[in-house]
Amino acid sequence: MPRVVGIDPGLTRLGIGVVDTTGQTQRLVHYSVLRSAPEMSIEHRLMKLGREVEAAIDEHAPDAIALERVFAQQNLHSVMGVAQVSGIVLRAAAERDIPIVMLTPTEVKAAVTGYGAAEKAQVAEMVRRLLRLAEAPKPADAADALALAITHGRAVVRTGAVRRDSGSQPTPAQKAWAAAEAQAKRRR
Amino acid sequence: MPRVVGIDPGLTRLGIGVVDTTGQTQRLVHYSVLRSAPEMSIEHRLMKLGREVEAAIDEHAPDAIALERVFAQQNLHSVMGVAQVSGIVLRAAAERDIPIVMLTPTEVKAAVTGYGAAEKAQVAEMVRRLLRLAEAPKPADAADALALAITHGRAVVRTGAVRRDSGSQPTPAQKAWAAAEAQAKRRR
Repeated sequence: MPRVVGIDPGLTRLGIGVVDTTGQTQRLVHYSVLRSAPEMSIEHRLMKLGREVEAAIDEHAPDAIALERVFAQQNLHSVMGVAQVSGIVLRAAAERDIPIVMLTPTEVKAAVTGYGAAEKAQVAEMVRRLLRLAEAPKPADAADALALAITHGRAVVRTGAVRRDSGSQPTPAQKAWAAAEAQAKRRR
Repeated sequence: MPRVVGIDPGLTRLGIGVVDTTGQTQRLVHYSVLRSAPEMSIEHRLMKLGREVEAAIDEHAPDAIALERVFAQQNLHSVMGVAQVSGIVLRAAAERDIPIVMLTPTEVKAAVTGYGAAEKAQVAEMVRRLLRLAEAPKPADAADALALAITHGRAVVRTGAVRRDSGSQPTPAQKAWAAAEAQAKRRR
């Protein structure tokens, strides 16, 4: 019964979703959204979020972590903050020897709704159904974090092993992602 | 006599330079380059660099840290790694209550050479002269880190106080930077 913590990284809102997967069944363990105020200095925002996300990881002791992969072509300013938070999450996983994977929004949407370009509301509704909740989790950052945990929890059960990202052996999805990034770069 | 640690962030090479400033005089304390192999997973690269940069900060106990500010318009792929490392450095400074500033390459080049578009070799040569070294520090990451430390050391002496970055009160240089980022974004 692998437990996965999904993390939708961000400076203003950071979604955390924890899901246990048994066979075809998935169970909600926890979800929450961490916040830091834009008025705070960047270093203090990162300290606050870093401490709180590490506390959540330690509390739920997951078998794996699934982190949303930032796409550098999105809003440039927010991407930098998201990457800074992601660096802290990645290191936190390594320090605890918890395998961590990065999944693209497209991978997660496709896994949860069957459609890689699904709307946020569709993702939230599928999360609600899969976890048998009365209402869709809010805000969207929490639903996205749960979708990450659901997606990776299924993959762990399907493959029988937690996957580790590796710089030397990208998955097909990671190769496609790198190609998309390279293409976006050439367009500039 | 403020001591400043300058950090040129990067995954493959991270430059560290430590400089003491007394009045108009600056003295080299230390420089080095931390490395992580591209074959390692991103989370293990960040763990290694995070541990080593924190050890360097603790060893030299600076009054302030000057970190190079990443420009999101540069190489997209490497920018993400640089931002991830920068997040770890920013948090490390906050955890130690050491004031940290982010300086743009243009600010540093202008301060050290008098010319904001100076070549890397010119920066390295001015660092050599200012610190009265027999040869310019190598590689360029180390010279850049020392240039960051020199620039901020002078600013601390000039203003009589260490500066803290603040999300709510950007400096003129930070405003100019934000404007340049916004402009670059609109061009895409």
